[in-house]
Amino acid sequence: MLYPTPIAKLIESFAKLPGIGIKTATRLAFYTIGMKDEEVNDFAKNLLAAKRELTYCSICGNLTDVDPCNICSDDSRDQSIILVVEDSKDVSAMEKIQEYHGLYHVLHGLISPMNGVGPDDINLKKLLTRLQEESDINEVIIATNTTADGEATSMYISRVLKPAGIKVTRLARGLAVGSDIEYADEVTLLRAIENRTEL
Amino acid sequence: MLYPTPIAKLIESFAKLPGIGIKTATRLAFYTIGMKDEEVNDFAKNLLAAKRELTYCSICGNLTDVDPCNICSDDSRDQSIILVVEDSKDVSAMEKIQEYHGLYHVLHGLISPMNGVGPDDINLKKLLTRLQEESDINEVIIATNTTADGEATSMYISRVLKPAGIKVTRLARGLAVGSDIEYADEVTLLRAIENRTEL
Repeated sequence: MLYPTPIAKLIESFAKLPGIGIKTATRLAFYTIGMKDEEVNDFAKNLLAAKRELTYCSICGNLTDVDPCNICSDDSRDQSIILVVEDSKDVSAMEKIQEYHGLYHVLHGLISPMNGVGPDDINLKKLLTRLQEESDINEVIIATNTTADGEATSMYISRVLKPAGIKVTRLARGLAVGSDIEYADEVTLLRAIENRTEL
Repeated sequence: MLYPTPIAKLIESFAKLPGIGIKTATRLAFYTIGMKDEEVNDFAKNLLAAKRELTYCSICGNLTDVDPCNICSDDSRDQSIILVVEDSKDVSAMEKIQEYHGLYHVLHGLISPMNGVGPDDINLKKLLTRLQEESDINEVIIATNTTADGEATSMYISRVLKPAGIKVTRLARGLAVGSDIEYADEVTLLRAIENRTEL
C-alpha cells in the first residue's frame, strides 16, 4: 500500500501536466484534499468548462469562447494591420501593453525544420487567405519568438508575403529594458548596435 | 480583454495551488485545453473523487479511503510499535522502504511555539489514548522532520510518554547516504560523530 486509490489517481492526473513531476503532483494532490469543498468543486467545474467552451477563432485562430473572437469582431480596431504570433498567450501579452490596436493571427506553432514541422503544419495558409480576401490589410507584423524556429518562421512568412506587395515588419531586436549591458549576449548586443536609434 | 472567461477562471483555480504562480497557472491552463477530452474529464473526476472519498483513519489519522485504514486493520503488522509522523506523505515515504512493519500515528502538524501551535492543536491526544487503550504497544518511534518544530514535537512527546514507562526512540541523525562530508552542515557532522557505529 502506498496511497489510497483516489489520491493516487489524482496524483496521476496532476503529473500529466507539463513541468509537474511525481513529487510536485503529490504535494498538489494533498493540498487539494485540504482545500474547501467549494474550491475543489469550482476547480473541477472550471476544468470542464474551459475544455468545453473554448474554441479557436475561425478568423485569427486565437483561443476564444465566442466565434469570431472579441478582437476580430471589434470594429474599432485597426483593420489594416495583422500581428502574427505563435500562440494565444502571445496575444494576451501584446494586449496587456494596451498599445497595439490592430488584428492578430495565431500560428499555433512555428516552422521547425529540425522537428519536421513545415509551413503546412501551422495555421499559415489561413493567413494567406485572409490577406487575399481582406484587401484593407497593408502591414503584417511578425512577432514570433527570437529563437531559431521563430526566426525561420519569420523569414518564411516575409518571403511569401513580400512578392504580394504587403509590408512585412518584425518586432525590434535590442536590449531588454532594465537589462545590464554587461550580461547581454553577443547577438543581442550586435542587434542593439545595428538598430541604434537617434536621440 | 485578456483571456476569455473560461480560461481566466481555470488559471485562477490553478493559481490557488501552492507554488503555482500566475505564469505557471497560465501555462497549465493552456496545456489542459490542449489535452484530450477524456483526460480532462478524468482530471475533474479525480479531483472530486479524492475530495469526496478520502477521509482520515479514526485510529491513526492517516489519509485513507476505508476506515480504519489498511495499515491499522492489517493484523499481520507488528501491533507493538507505533511510528509517529507529521503527515500522510511521511507514512508513504516509510512504506516505500518496505522495512517497517509496525503501526503509524499521523500528527497532522508539529508543535510550533513560534506559530502558536500547541500540543492540543495537533493529533496528539489520540496517540495518548491509543497508548492507554492498546496495552500491546511497547515502543514509540518518533519520525518528525529534523527541523526546530520537529525537534520540539519530538521532545514534547518523549517527555509525556517516558514517565508512562513506554520506550520512546527517534530516527538516527547522521550523514545522508550518498552525501559529501565536505558539504555536510556542522550539526549533522556533530550528530554523525556522536552516533558513530562500530564496524
